[in-house]
Amino acid sequence: MQSRYFTIHAHPEGTPERELFALETAELPALAEGEVRVRNTWLSVDPYMRGRMSGVTTYIDPFELGAPLQGAAIGEVIESRAEAFPTGTRVRHMGGWRDIAQLPAEQLEHLPDFDVPEQAYLGVLGMPGMTAWAGLNRIAEMQEGDNVLVSGAAGAVGSLAVQLAKAKGGTVVGIAGSQDKLDWLESLGVKAVSYKDRDADELTAALREACPEGFDVYYENVGGICLEAALNTLRVGARIAVCGMIARYNEATPSAGPDNLAMLLIRRARMEGFIVFDHWAHYPQFLEEVGPQVESGRLDDDETVEDGLERTPDAFLKLFEGANRGKMLVRL
Amino acid sequence: MQSRYFTIHAHPEGTPERELFALETAELPALAEGEVRVRNTWLSVDPYMRGRMSGVTTYIDPFELGAPLQGAAIGEVIESRAEAFPTGTRVRHMGGWRDIAQLPAEQLEHLPDFDVPEQAYLGVLGMPGMTAWAGLNRIAEMQEGDNVLVSGAAGAVGSLAVQLAKAKGGTVVGIAGSQDKLDWLESLGVKAVSYKDRDADELTAALREACPEGFDVYYENVGGICLEAALNTLRVGARIAVCGMIARYNEATPSAGPDNLAMLLIRRARMEGFIVFDHWAHYPQFLEEVGPQVESGRLDDDETVEDGLERTPDAFLKLFEGANRGKMLVRL
Repeated sequence: MQSRYFTIHAHPEGTPERELFALETAELPALAEGEVRVRNTWLSVDPYMRGRMSGVTTYIDPFELGAPLQGAAIGEVIESRAEAFPTGTRVRHMGGWRDIAQLPAEQLEHLPDFDVPEQAYLGVLGMPGMTAWAGLNRIAEMQEGDNVLVSGAAGAVGSLAVQLAKAKGGTVVGIAGSQDKLDWLESLGVKAVSYKDRDADELTAALREACPEGFDVYYENVGGICLEAALNTLRVGARIAVCGMIARYNEATPSAGPDNLAMLLIRRARMEGFIVFDHWAHYPQFLEEVGPQVESGRLDDDETVEDGLERTPDAFLKLFEGANRGKMLVRL
Repeated sequence: MQSRYFTIHAHPEGTPERELFALETAELPALAEGEVRVRNTWLSVDPYMRGRMSGVTTYIDPFELGAPLQGAAIGEVIESRAEAFPTGTRVRHMGGWRDIAQLPAEQLEHLPDFDVPEQAYLGVLGMPGMTAWAGLNRIAEMQEGDNVLVSGAAGAVGSLAVQLAKAKGGTVVGIAGSQDKLDWLESLGVKAVSYKDRDADELTAALREACPEGFDVYYENVGGICLEAALNTLRVGARIAVCGMIARYNEATPSAGPDNLAMLLIRRARMEGFIVFDHWAHYPQFLEEVGPQVESGRLDDDETVEDGLERTPDAFLKLFEGANRGKMLVRL
């Protein structure tokens, strides 16, 4: 049996070109004892993958040039030499960017048992959802009634962060770009503020108008002027959870940081970076809390879907154009 | 009786000129019930006072134009209408920048009872010492054996931070400017690194050489390239206590921040600003721990002293030239 998969053969500088990604085909070896063959049904593309393309070890190993790219995926076991995963089992694993994945059983997870579409385990009940939850609760230590600001608020992580924050009360403000995203945020009861055509001072003024008392929590996905404006609007004792800084991922030369970091001092505020994998032991707690909200439809788990393996690089590149509302997925 | 005191009549931009400070004289009113008159013997000048000269409320009210400047001082009660502070009592209070202070008794503190020179309560056993201790222990949560980096390491706060860190083990590195300061740090068993004539990359390389494993704690007094280099050398889970950013206090236009804030994410690090006054409830614990170390001479509490009230502005301005080793004081 053959597997079709994407590779890269060079480390991109700046925004990657579509041509960076090569679709290749290889004959799979016979299954070894303990291995499983999975037909993928959904692939995840995520901003953090850009970092893995740069050839540098950050908190995760870089992608190997010429080898199949990796990423979260959902699929069905079609051949198995592992007792725990018989044919027909639905699984989640990291063998994405391909149609057929062949993996040792210890790299597979059974899907949890909620009444939700299976791709939810790549989004609202997967890594992005867990990231939103861990950042708010475990890093920013959000309290009942806190005012919360979220950048990238219509993205996979941000859209869940605003909703989880909203459920705990306080004023919740989301920063996004397009009118479509702003409207969607407002429909969720979130105050939506655009960063488009604004400098940091103008964004600061808009945030102050949306929430004059300032923010107890800032959930950071973007960096750039969002961070600078957020620093200006912190309350005393505020906590910033740094989940990502997508504004910078494609920079060949890093741009300067905010000139107002001293606000951390003036507001006795805390800014903390985190990686969701460090918090994975709490995934069951997250599922228990958020799973029922997704089942009941109380959480709006918007998705943006591209169809077909061939479109995987396009889906990935759209993340940096802000083209997705909610989780960006590829359906096979 | 007359009091001589310093005032400012304008808000300085950039580095203040000596001419900003006016020495004025006023006849003191008769003592009201509950008031005390103090002849100051030692005045403190501290970097945070620069912020109070800008006319903007940060975490503390600005100085009032034309009114006596304020700051920590030690003195002797020479006239009293308050039972708790009879004539002859040695006290600490915030009526500095003057020779005779007249204050309500509730603004006075008795000096603690250690066998140390009284000016120690403006330095090693006063606000700067407490700042070093609180930043290391309560903000950075320093653990036994942590590697610790301190900027402004020969200043009033930094020189105590390096010594308190040293006492808990691990590699301690201090950043300073002049050769005299570097030599002094080395004499304390601290690895001294100069920031002079270096850019952020060169300072990063020098820090990596001094402590190849990287730092668990960064005690930040300076900002600028010190912060940028420190971010490059953090270990996973590092904590940055932001005590001050003296490099920026005289900037008319704030300079850009570090372009590598994403290191907080990569190293899952935390950066937290603090104000010592928020932690003052722990002052007795600090005294109990650090007082005996000063009495016994185990802590080197270096001082830089200017003589005479007239020299107070000069002492203050020297802080920004890096002219002091240890606490900068004025002796009256």
